[in-house]
Amino acid sequence: MTNIRQKDQTIWLDPDYPDAVRIIDQRLLPHNYAEMTVGNVETMAVAIKTMAVRGAGCIGVSAGFGMYLAALETKGLGASQADVRLKEAAETLTATRPTATNLSWAVDRQLDGLLNIDDGSARIQTALGIAQDIMDEDIASCHRIGEIGLRLIRELHEKLGRTVNILTHCNAGWLAFVKHGSATAPMYAAQRAGIPIHVFVGESRPRNQGALTAWEMRNAGIDHTYLVDSAIGHVIQRGEVDIIFTGADRVSMSGDVANKIGTYLRALAANENGVPFYVNFPSSTLDPYSFDGIGEIEIEERDSDEVTHIRSEIDGKRVAAPIVSAGTSARNPAFDVTPHRLITGLITERGLCEATPEAVAASFPDYVVRGS
Amino acid sequence: MTNIRQKDQTIWLDPDYPDAVRIIDQRLLPHNYAEMTVGNVETMAVAIKTMAVRGAGCIGVSAGFGMYLAALETKGLGASQADVRLKEAAETLTATRPTATNLSWAVDRQLDGLLNIDDGSARIQTALGIAQDIMDEDIASCHRIGEIGLRLIRELHEKLGRTVNILTHCNAGWLAFVKHGSATAPMYAAQRAGIPIHVFVGESRPRNQGALTAWEMRNAGIDHTYLVDSAIGHVIQRGEVDIIFTGADRVSMSGDVANKIGTYLRALAANENGVPFYVNFPSSTLDPYSFDGIGEIEIEERDSDEVTHIRSEIDGKRVAAPIVSAGTSARNPAFDVTPHRLITGLITERGLCEATPEAVAASFPDYVVRGS
Repeated sequence: MTNIRQKDQTIWLDPDYPDAVRIIDQRLLPHNYAEMTVGNVETMAVAIKTMAVRGAGCIGVSAGFGMYLAALETKGLGASQADVRLKEAAETLTATRPTATNLSWAVDRQLDGLLNIDDGSARIQTALGIAQDIMDEDIASCHRIGEIGLRLIRELHEKLGRTVNILTHCNAGWLAFVKHGSATAPMYAAQRAGIPIHVFVGESRPRNQGALTAWEMRNAGIDHTYLVDSAIGHVIQRGEVDIIFTGADRVSMSGDVANKIGTYLRALAANENGVPFYVNFPSSTLDPYSFDGIGEIEIEERDSDEVTHIRSEIDGKRVAAPIVSAGTSARNPAFDVTPHRLITGLITERGLCEATPEAVAASFPDYVVRGS
Repeated sequence: MTNIRQKDQTIWLDPDYPDAVRIIDQRLLPHNYAEMTVGNVETMAVAIKTMAVRGAGCIGVSAGFGMYLAALETKGLGASQADVRLKEAAETLTATRPTATNLSWAVDRQLDGLLNIDDGSARIQTALGIAQDIMDEDIASCHRIGEIGLRLIRELHEKLGRTVNILTHCNAGWLAFVKHGSATAPMYAAQRAGIPIHVFVGESRPRNQGALTAWEMRNAGIDHTYLVDSAIGHVIQRGEVDIIFTGADRVSMSGDVANKIGTYLRALAANENGVPFYVNFPSSTLDPYSFDGIGEIEIEERDSDEVTHIRSEIDGKRVAAPIVSAGTSARNPAFDVTPHRLITGLITERGLCEATPEAVAASFPDYVVRGS
């Protein structure tokens, strides 16, 4: 195995593997790279549950293809029998990670298109078309986010006349979507445009998704530096960071952002030192039903084992190395909420939007479901 | 071996080990507990260099006892020969960790007392007396810091009428001094006073000294929760922290504080959310020669290997588990500087002092060496 990527997208169809989907097995990263064939809906469910595929965008697209794999198994069936099977498959997929909204959204979109089709071949073609549409939209959204972020990087480069130093947090890279990523999309766009950049990658304990971002940067040949989360304040204070891009797990209609734990501290340091702080996400991440992010977005507390142990690989063997002595109690809040007043702007496929209730309502009138 | 402590101080004399000093071998913590006999100055130098003893106060006291061990070897010698040996010992000790000011301060204090003594027994008695003085002063300073911090905790307890939630960073505990610690002294004092407390312990990547603080808390029976560094902002924002105590590595005459990397982010979150932020240190940590902490205190960049690998123990074997893929470049600034305007107060053995240039000059007139 090698730790250099072969592919530049997380999920794809390969003519050499008919009636199957290929994915990167992200459980082995960043220490090893391996691809994996997913031949049926049950295997796709396991891949999502065990985080072989991870990240909001990537999970949604994987679920879309999971429904395609389910449709393949209904080839010889009429609508009534096929529909039972498809609904079972939808339940299996939706149960894997019940909090991921992209997952149920993708599954529902497939069900809407697939139920009540009597012809097996037509059903399969429809499923494949919807899965590809979901994938193409993910790619297009991330590409557009990259183009908008690129404008900001270009302006900084013209103003500063030197390499632009970008900071990110966690992995909102192509590994978390299909291609490009959300936070990383402007970096890849800058590289394509020939603008010199350097990326500070924050570790993102407890699961160290910064190591995935570092792996992406190294494969892309983008100059980067890996830092522990605590060091971020120092480099911002010393003027070493010109602009910050992070992803988002949920964004409220006021512009408050729930994202990987630690995002709030980065935003505080950015605000204190006058560094622009942007949050990048496809508009599916906007939650029309929440307004006050701190009061209304529930923060998932994950297993404290992720904090007390670190996953690694030693001599080719996967290990969970203990950090604290046995019996130490720990807590593991997975996300935090950054209030919108600390955020310079929100970047979606619709454009750049100020992080204010008024600007969000103006940019997303179709999302306004209640008085704000 | 057991990971439960036997001793409640880091360095001590034991009649069962004459002409030697006993220390806790902190390299094995928090996974294992072991004591170690130090029988000569060379062994003490290795103990300091390899961090069997660590933390400003503990290093100073260890160096003081190192000079006592050197004096023991000069028993049969007159002043001129003994002085050569003592100066060699002083150089050996000082070279172990050249940036630790407490170390050279303790060694110089011994040399001042020991040179030009003709009688071997008198020389040894003097060396023992000075070493014990340095130790007793360290214990007394930390105890006093505890009493001052206790007043603040008591006030909060009376106001809130419930358990007081305290946050700390890194390990400025008794392991870093002789007893009590600086940041932890108020916690131990509160426990003795019967005031209910709960302590949030930040991990303090890259070396995870938070695991040492968690070990201290568990041994003392103080309720505590271990958090990754990124989670600190979240618990402060949610009102779960009532007061913060950290230690300091160097404090400028303006009240700026250099301390373990990540302290600055904690201070920003505290300031943003109105949580009092105190820095505890013996006055030897105040640097009369620095004023503008951000401009004048040089930040040590340590080996990036500490960032890219994590030290742990698996199946009884000590390991360095890789976090990122091979070839990822990393940086490891060990400290950051918190500007004094984010600090509520400085607690030393002299009392509680506001973190302003005026208050520091008034509390430490003997430290003012130049116009401020």
